[in-house]
Amino acid sequence: MTTLTLRPLTAEAFAPYGDVIECSGAPDKIINQGMCGRHHDLALVDSGPGRTGISLFDAKARALPYRLDLMERHPLGSQAFIPLDNVPMIVSVAPDADGKPGTPEVFLSQPGQSINIHRNVWHGVLAPLGAPGRYVVVDHISDLPNLEEHWLEDPYDILDQ
Amino acid sequence: MTTLTLRPLTAEAFAPYGDVIECSGAPDKIINQGMCGRHHDLALVDSGPGRTGISLFDAKARALPYRLDLMERHPLGSQAFIPLDNVPMIVSVAPDADGKPGTPEVFLSQPGQSINIHRNVWHGVLAPLGAPGRYVVVDHISDLPNLEEHWLEDPYDILDQ
Repeated sequence: MTTLTLRPLTAEAFAPYGDVIECSGAPDKIINQGMCGRHHDLALVDSGPGRTGISLFDAKARALPYRLDLMERHPLGSQAFIPLDNVPMIVSVAPDADGKPGTPEVFLSQPGQSINIHRNVWHGVLAPLGAPGRYVVVDHISDLPNLEEHWLEDPYDILDQ
Repeated sequence: MTTLTLRPLTAEAFAPYGDVIECSGAPDKIINQGMCGRHHDLALVDSGPGRTGISLFDAKARALPYRLDLMERHPLGSQAFIPLDNVPMIVSVAPDADGKPGTPEVFLSQPGQSINIHRNVWHGVLAPLGAPGRYVVVDHISDLPNLEEHWLEDPYDILDQ
């Protein structure tokens, strides 16, 4: 069994796969008579031929070591995950390698970090670590098929940092 | 000074103004090999002539009684507020009355509740109650003017439930 080691989620490391939505640095604009900072336009939302919708995922807890045996991608749109309960997510992503996932990279999100996975990027399923978590999801809505799954011939075990 | 009394935020009471995004009832679909419930397509996202973006608002705490003296609306799109820190929001909304806000209704959100204010609906600014709060915001992005403000001639004081 090949192992992968979790890394802290950063915007730079995640850039090939999507966006990290977080308060970093000064806000782009101060609004509401000085009472609110707006960190503006942090994610590339792409709903392709559908419309953009907001859903809510209620997911059971995962633990380490975490077996990564399935990756999926959405050919028609991006998908953002916004944690309501500050539960960190195991974020598994991979470059495409001839229509299959290449070698994955695995990150652990921190409280306050949301992610937006770009259209057609291979990723693991939503995996809250250590506790159940609810996540608001912003993604493509339509009746078109928008899920491609790939079961890994050689699964990985994800280990702690 | 006229007073308004906060009511608990419910989907039914908020329906004339927008959507409450919350886990209510059974999920619409079970995904990820039984590990996740999807509550599907809970909000009408409408970005009009722009695109839909994701931003982050970092807002200072408000207290009761809360002075409601300004309402605003966005003619080009809906605006969703998703709390990252479980801080309740004072949600002030009003029907339109000849191009101005009519009598407001005021709600207090509960932890786990997000809201989506529909396009062109009068509302107060983001107002976390009792603590600062960060909120992921899903709204219209463009260079077009998308803010109409109205200062109330007779402000309201919002009181506890």
